Amino acid sequence: MDTIRAGIAGAAGYSGLELFRILARHPQVSISFITSEQCAGRPISDFLPEQAGGFDPHFVPLDAQQLANQADVVFLALPPESSLEHAEAFLRSARVIDLSAAFRLKDALVYEKWYKHPHTAGALLPKAVYGLSEWNRDALRGARLIANPGCYPTSVLIPMLPLVHKGCVSDGSVIVDSKSGVSGMGRKITADAAFMQINENFRAYGVGTHRHTPEIAQELNSAGKGAVDLVFTPHLLPIERGILSTIYFRSDFQAEECRCFLAHFYEGEPFVRVLEDTLPETARVAHTNLCVCTVVPSGVDGTLIAISAIDNLVKGAAGQAVQNMNIAFGFSEELAL
Amino acid sequence: MDTIRAGIAGAAGYSGLELFRILARHPQVSISFITSEQCAGRPISDFLPEQAGGFDPHFVPLDAQQLANQADVVFLALPPESSLEHAEAFLRSARVIDLSAAFRLKDALVYEKWYKHPHTAGALLPKAVYGLSEWNRDALRGARLIANPGCYPTSVLIPMLPLVHKGCVSDGSVIVDSKSGVSGMGRKITADAAFMQINENFRAYGVGTHRHTPEIAQELNSAGKGAVDLVFTPHLLPIERGILSTIYFRSDFQAEECRCFLAHFYEGEPFVRVLEDTLPETARVAHTNLCVCTVVPSGVDGTLIAISAIDNLVKGAAGQAVQNMNIAFGFSEELAL
Amino acid sequence: MDTIRAGIAGAAGYSGLELFRILARHPQVSISFITSEQCAGRPISDFLPEQAGGFDPHFVPLDAQQLANQADVVFLALPPESSLEHAEAFLRSARVIDLSAAFRLKDALVYEKWYKHPHTAGALLPKAVYGLSEWNRDALRGARLIANPGCYPTSVLIPMLPLVHKGCVSDGSVIVDSKSGVSGMGRKITADAAFMQINENFRAYGVGTHRHTPEIAQELNSAGKGAVDLVFTPHLLPIERGILSTIYFRSDFQAEECRCFLAHFYEGEPFVRVLEDTLPETARVAHTNLCVCTVVPSGVDGTLIAISAIDNLVKGAAGQAVQNMNIAFGFSEELAL
Amino acid sequence: MDTIRAGIAGAAGYSGLELFRILARHPQVSISFITSEQCAGRPISDFLPEQAGGFDPHFVPLDAQQLANQADVVFLALPPESSLEHAEAFLRSARVIDLSAAFRLKDALVYEKWYKHPHTAGALLPKAVYGLSEWNRDALRGARLIANPGCYPTSVLIPMLPLVHKGCVSDGSVIVDSKSGVSGMGRKITADAAFMQINENFRAYGVGTHRHTPEIAQELNSAGKGAVDLVFTPHLLPIERGILSTIYFRSDFQAEECRCFLAHFYEGEPFVRVLEDTLPETARVAHTNLCVCTVVPSGVDGTLIAISAIDNLVKGAAGQAVQNMNIAFGFSEELAL
Repeated sequence: MDTIRAGIAGAAGYSGLELFRILARHPQVSISFITSEQCAGRPISDFLPEQAGGFDPHFVPLDAQQLANQADVVFLALPPESSLEHAEAFLRSARVIDLSAAFRLKDALVYEKWYKHPHTAGALLPKAVYGLSEWNRDALRGARLIANPGCYPTSVLIPMLPLVHKGCVSDGSVIVDSKSGVSGMGRKITADAAFMQINENFRAYGVGTHRHTPEIAQELNSAGKGAVDLVFTPHLLPIERGILSTIYFRSDFQAEECRCFLAHFYEGEPFVRVLEDTLPETARVAHTNLCVCTVVPSGVDGTLIAISAIDNLVKGAAGQAVQNMNIAFGFSEELAL
Repeated sequence: MDTIRAGIAGAAGYSGLELFRILARHPQVSISFITSEQCAGRPISDFLPEQAGGFDPHFVPLDAQQLANQADVVFLALPPESSLEHAEAFLRSARVIDLSAAFRLKDALVYEKWYKHPHTAGALLPKAVYGLSEWNRDALRGARLIANPGCYPTSVLIPMLPLVHKGCVSDGSVIVDSKSGVSGMGRKITADAAFMQINENFRAYGVGTHRHTPEIAQELNSAGKGAVDLVFTPHLLPIERGILSTIYFRSDFQAEECRCFLAHFYEGEPFVRVLEDTLPETARVAHTNLCVCTVVPSGVDGTLIAISAIDNLVKGAAGQAVQNMNIAFGFSEELAL
Repeated sequence: MDTIRAGIAGAAGYSGLELFRILARHPQVSISFITSEQCAGRPISDFLPEQAGGFDPHFVPLDAQQLANQADVVFLALPPESSLEHAEAFLRSARVIDLSAAFRLKDALVYEKWYKHPHTAGALLPKAVYGLSEWNRDALRGARLIANPGCYPTSVLIPMLPLVHKGCVSDGSVIVDSKSGVSGMGRKITADAAFMQINENFRAYGVGTHRHTPEIAQELNSAGKGAVDLVFTPHLLPIERGILSTIYFRSDFQAEECRCFLAHFYEGEPFVRVLEDTLPETARVAHTNLCVCTVVPSGVDGTLIAISAIDNLVKGAAGQAVQNMNIAFGFSEELAL
Repeated sequence: MDTIRAGIAGAAGYSGLELFRILARHPQVSISFITSEQCAGRPISDFLPEQAGGFDPHFVPLDAQQLANQADVVFLALPPESSLEHAEAFLRSARVIDLSAAFRLKDALVYEKWYKHPHTAGALLPKAVYGLSEWNRDALRGARLIANPGCYPTSVLIPMLPLVHKGCVSDGSVIVDSKSGVSGMGRKITADAAFMQINENFRAYGVGTHRHTPEIAQELNSAGKGAVDLVFTPHLLPIERGILSTIYFRSDFQAEECRCFLAHFYEGEPFVRVLEDTLPETARVAHTNLCVCTVVPSGVDGTLIAISAIDNLVKGAAGQAVQNMNIAFGFSEELAL
């Protein structure tokens, strides 16, 4: 199969750089452009010194009109406002895999309520495929606009969608207590991002108000028969990479039954491991596209605990985006991952 | 008031050293002995170099018969088996503040079920006062045997006991998702304690089986009218000190009502802060005897979230033990804290 | 002895907060004001939650004219430009302990070369006493203007000044390889201060150009007989507190002789420990006013290695400042430390 | 070119696992066995969960006689005593790349002095090629026994060998102040390896006595005209991966001349970068086979500073070992790296 050309818009952020790392070793992809407003003119080796002397492209400003026909696929690692602005132009000649939230929520009104700005590309929403690879593989084949899932939602949906769909969640209450590494904040220069604020510290944030809440709820609701009342509490871990989600739900089944069902559901999947005797740890999946998960008893009858771990930059962002590209273009799904 | 003599059994562990640090600056306490089997003969300055050249006592082996009459109060920073073995001998001539779980559970059978060894000092159980300072202050005055609470239970009970007692918890289901720093493991030499296992990592452990579960449940049950179904999930944070507990419960009240009730309940307490506009962080209470907590909306009607933070070695162990000593002996409660 | 009134200018920085913590427990000091431009109007408990409900003063803007007569001693935890601007007004009615570099270098021209701005208070330079407590104790008694040493210089000069003075450094070449925790950067909001830049990373900075170089050189030169050629290389450690300096020098003496001489020189000093069998570690002195140091063989004849460790915020800043206050006012030198 | 078979002896250590990771993606290598006494019978996916369901070999005990003819190349990631014991048997039918110190020192007596046990394979010493890839490339082509350099020596020799050889080091004195991440300790279960000992801490160790000293000295001596007096001081950083070495030497040249010479010397090298405007940082080379280095002025005439950074597990161990394999077998040198 021929090689395709890939562009990365927003390549100087953490997800964008991770995309570059993965795509640079992909045997069927050539990277045709990388954009960054702030770093325009600088080489990628300023961030990835291993590229110096080899393939070392320079960042260019984001000009969708001009860049669109230089790529077969464009990854948008941009804020959602920018994805809304540029997706259409890229879509004229390329497929688009958007890592922002711009096309994840099917209802533009829900988007506007949580993201506090107008959804200016509503006409594209019906075409967007939600890119949870293992769950939407059929729809992803040939897809032209892929809404890559959020990092927290990925960690929650991989264990919970099959359980909700199967009817293992007995009432609508799901409590998600998630903990994320610092790269999930993006590359910010704020007091909150300082070493002295994060190191040797731990805290919750965005309690009851985090923007990933409606995304998780939408998918859980569409997988099950009744509405889910979702509580989602993110916390900030003093580590660089990784999300661990501890998920509490009511069930008429035993933990072992749910775990076995999950194991069966994901049998043969290259990037999901359902653990039998051990518990997920973030370090074990760092720098991989894996989601590891399990279901364990809570000690209280009728309440179960699902636990999952991913690398937020890989399976939670760039890795899953490339996995989706592989599916969309008919490549082997594991290529470069 | 006269100075009292304090002994520390198990002074080379993290809690024992923290006790030494606090008691060494207490104006009404002189430290009369410190014990450690492994470090017998060595000076405390091997651990606390600031003591060299000043007050620098040597560790002695634990011989309760001989040491008992050298102290007015003995702190037991020992494994529970050792506390069970030695408490009675010390109690003949001194008050005992036990930092282990030996005397926390009122029912010896429950103790034996969770701790997997016989409770060999059942006769002392009725005399033990559970030392959650703010909750049991009256019973602590003059107490001769104080069961100092566990670190996780302290973080949970300070926000939840008043709420349960007031009827703010509408059904019996309380889900506690706790995260602790590494000093909570004690000074172990195991693969699990290695830097390479803990750094840049995060995981749950003891899910559904942690020994602090019955302690939390016992206190919540005795404070409320009905039985509580407690789910308790501890996690290991890559930091040295601090516990943050995120607690999910059903309530007929609003978060703001619960928060205000808590704020009123703890008004004037020197070591509890109910936060209004901010969320608890472990770093803010490190090296202090504070518990900071709040109650916030979950985003789902009828479900609330309480969040609390303590330093596991201070309010979660040595600090609260000294606070209890201050109460028991009629000192100013804040002395040395 | 009566209590004195202390003001802290720049109390919201790391050194300023550390000063507050120490002075708040000092039995002969009452804190009469704390200044901060950015935090004016906010209480100190926004930073130190343990003060809420107790002694909880509010930050005020820095108005030296108005504040001067409210204190017997004013600590300036300010950038050197601000110290230059305000020292004189405070000195009219109070003693001043300046934690910046404004008055450390005896030669205003040297100051201007390294700090790149005019020295606008040259008339005060002859009155300033360099506050390396153990070295200048006599001059510090009764001093009205104290130039508190830099953090790096403190770590270097405590082991090296006695050795240079005694003639144990055989030629003028001293190489100092220092490593500092992040609090030494101050409270900055920059890309360099981000967790993602510092965590799991290590680097040198300011090689050959760090402003503490002339301060170290000045003191070494004035202690010895000949000029010292000083190489000073600072590095940034991914920890919060602590400096470790590894110092290479030529000597006609053996390491053991130098170590014994140092041990003898500092005998009885409350805040200096010369280690015999172990090597300095930053964690052992964190949150203390100690400097621990030693001299060891390098493996090459004629070259020795001195190693020292301090907490940069305590002995390297606020702790030594209070030690100097204790000396200047005739208090017991260890009070509150 | 045909695929070769590679065995890894000691594959459960940090270097062994890194070897596995690299070789598993090498297009011309198939891994034929992995050994570990402690983990015999367990699959590699217990350590590398991404291998589960794919290529997931089990550890076998180390039986050199039986395993020798199953591989074309055997990597020994063993303690030096074990390499001495097993190298010969493997060499009968395979090439050997030894990651221990067993064959690095040309003089068995020097080895025995520093490693404190007999060198039992002295007959192999003359055949061993010291595997600093960029320096010994010609000798490595076709080599049958390669002594892979130590991690610290790699970080020092890459910048210093060309400078010493060129005569840029004007007297024999070289002072190396190195700082290493924790993976350099290997997988130990000791008090020293505990998170609570290493986190938020920094210290020197093995001052004047570290075993890498004679290795660095041997290579510097053989590159230059006169003997080098080497001072080498290692320190332990609270990070997982990375070595940064700060190297002080006397020179009749300017820093810029030395830097340019180095840049010219390493021009076109895929794994060495001589930095022009920035300083080396460990995080920038983590998970890469790069050595980044530079030479800068010290601020003192005649004294220069070279600074280098590597990932101790990659260029300092497994990465360079694979680079050497690529050279020895005539593969493209960058394959899998």
